[in-house]
Amino acid sequence: MSTTTPAAPDQQRQVEEQLVQAVLASFQDTQDPRLKELMQALVRHLHAFIRETRPTEAEWQHAIDFLTAAGHITTDRRQEFVLLSDVLGASMQTINVNHGNTAGATEGTVVGPFFVEGSPEIPIGGDMAAGAPGQPCWVEGTVTDTDGNPVPRARLDVWEADEDGLYDVQYGDDQLAGRAHLFTDDQGEYAFWGLTPTPYPIPHDGPVGALLKAAERSPMRASHLHFMATAPGLRTLVTHIFVEGDSLLASDAVFGVRDSLVKRFERHPADTPTPDERDLSGQGWSSVRFDIALAPQPR
Amino acid sequence: MSTTTPAAPDQQRQVEEQLVQAVLASFQDTQDPRLKELMQALVRHLHAFIRETRPTEAEWQHAIDFLTAAGHITTDRRQEFVLLSDVLGASMQTINVNHGNTAGATEGTVVGPFFVEGSPEIPIGGDMAAGAPGQPCWVEGTVTDTDGNPVPRARLDVWEADEDGLYDVQYGDDQLAGRAHLFTDDQGEYAFWGLTPTPYPIPHDGPVGALLKAAERSPMRASHLHFMATAPGLRTLVTHIFVEGDSLLASDAVFGVRDSLVKRFERHPADTPTPDERDLSGQGWSSVRFDIALAPQPR
Repeated sequence: MSTTTPAAPDQQRQVEEQLVQAVLASFQDTQDPRLKELMQALVRHLHAFIRETRPTEAEWQHAIDFLTAAGHITTDRRQEFVLLSDVLGASMQTINVNHGNTAGATEGTVVGPFFVEGSPEIPIGGDMAAGAPGQPCWVEGTVTDTDGNPVPRARLDVWEADEDGLYDVQYGDDQLAGRAHLFTDDQGEYAFWGLTPTPYPIPHDGPVGALLKAAERSPMRASHLHFMATAPGLRTLVTHIFVEGDSLLASDAVFGVRDSLVKRFERHPADTPTPDERDLSGQGWSSVRFDIALAPQPR
Repeated sequence: MSTTTPAAPDQQRQVEEQLVQAVLASFQDTQDPRLKELMQALVRHLHAFIRETRPTEAEWQHAIDFLTAAGHITTDRRQEFVLLSDVLGASMQTINVNHGNTAGATEGTVVGPFFVEGSPEIPIGGDMAAGAPGQPCWVEGTVTDTDGNPVPRARLDVWEADEDGLYDVQYGDDQLAGRAHLFTDDQGEYAFWGLTPTPYPIPHDGPVGALLKAAERSPMRASHLHFMATAPGLRTLVTHIFVEGDSLLASDAVFGVRDSLVKRFERHPADTPTPDERDLSGQGWSSVRFDIALAPQPR
């Protein structure tokens, strides 16, 4: 041939591609077909990232050090890898790819790192704040399926930060507060007292916080209240409600906001009677309605 | 328009792409241009992986749990994230993209998780085994630049596993063995006593080991002896030499083997005189020559 192409780049590309093929081949005998698919895709995308960005060995070591620091700060009450997944939008994208195709169902969002098993059960109308500081908020709604049929005895787990921006697991003791579960009644209805959500930063004293700082990104989350809804035969929904008018809706640190989840929280002056005639000792309060439609169980 | 396309997939793609754009935009103000480039590329490839494989939320949680377990098993003597990078070929690909274009230079390979700072200095002809069990091996060679000029006073760090497959840091005490550094002489020549390399498994009692098992991959590394060569004005080389004839050359767990690094280890029967007349008490020994050419410092 009369054309000459630089030998080195071709050779180089060949060396890099041969390595990718060798790593892909090493997963060829994986028994579980889904694990094989995931690992081979991971290998392809990981190597594409490396071949595109061509990290120096020092940069790669920095990545190793970052993951190590994330691992070492992670405990059963602090999950830095979930934070990392959250701030990269990976958690939200995982929600997207799992909940895309159910018309009429309430949209999901990130679970976040603060859900814990074993929350106390409260009756309908009970108080999930349990002493966590903040403005009382009356939350009510109906749980239905996507055909509008009420779902009796659906389980709702609810959790949120207090007005200081802390979840109970961040208090440093074993107190349970701002966290409970309850069940819908025979008409699929529920109500409980919580706290008017306030904005707070995700934990940012670790490697993920350092990354946000280096990227000049705010660690603040838009104000929200977490829900997990479960009922037999229906798909479990993990979501939040957000507060209409919150200035952080457009810059949520974990990309969790969806328009359909932004709700009007009505503000009621002190001494306005509450739906259940609760004595709030002269405090102002808020109220919000959140109707939940659960998708059918995926086949 | 007269054509109709299914609304849901289009909508779905739009939701997913909007999220990718939002996450990319969140890194727009990163001051360090290289960090910005790396993070935005990471976001693109990570989201491409998620959108292609569409992991369930349980699968994503499994990945979080895997990283958490890797973090928790990692100490200053056990680096599970390096192992992970190694078995995915990422460490080797990082070597590839950094050492591709220097004709005549000795090829590099993975550093592995067992290099530690602070090895003892030995003289030329000294014994780096320092009591680690195995067959003595005489290693000699010359360090040059890529023009063939000898490099006097080049520093060589050398480390290897003993015949039980263990590095000193795996002994469970503070013993230093199978690890040393020495300097080339005025002619760029070096020699030392080490051990004939033997195959061993990478640590496989952690999450990376479980992954290899699930993939029916062997944790065995081809027999090798580690080198790191440093000299002022030249590029630091991290490499191994491998043993000609080793049956594991084609299935090295970390993809570290390169043809140019496979060396003939001559086997010498017991009582064959050694180059330095060392008394080996009737043991057999081996010898190998490894000439090293260091690339110029990259600009």
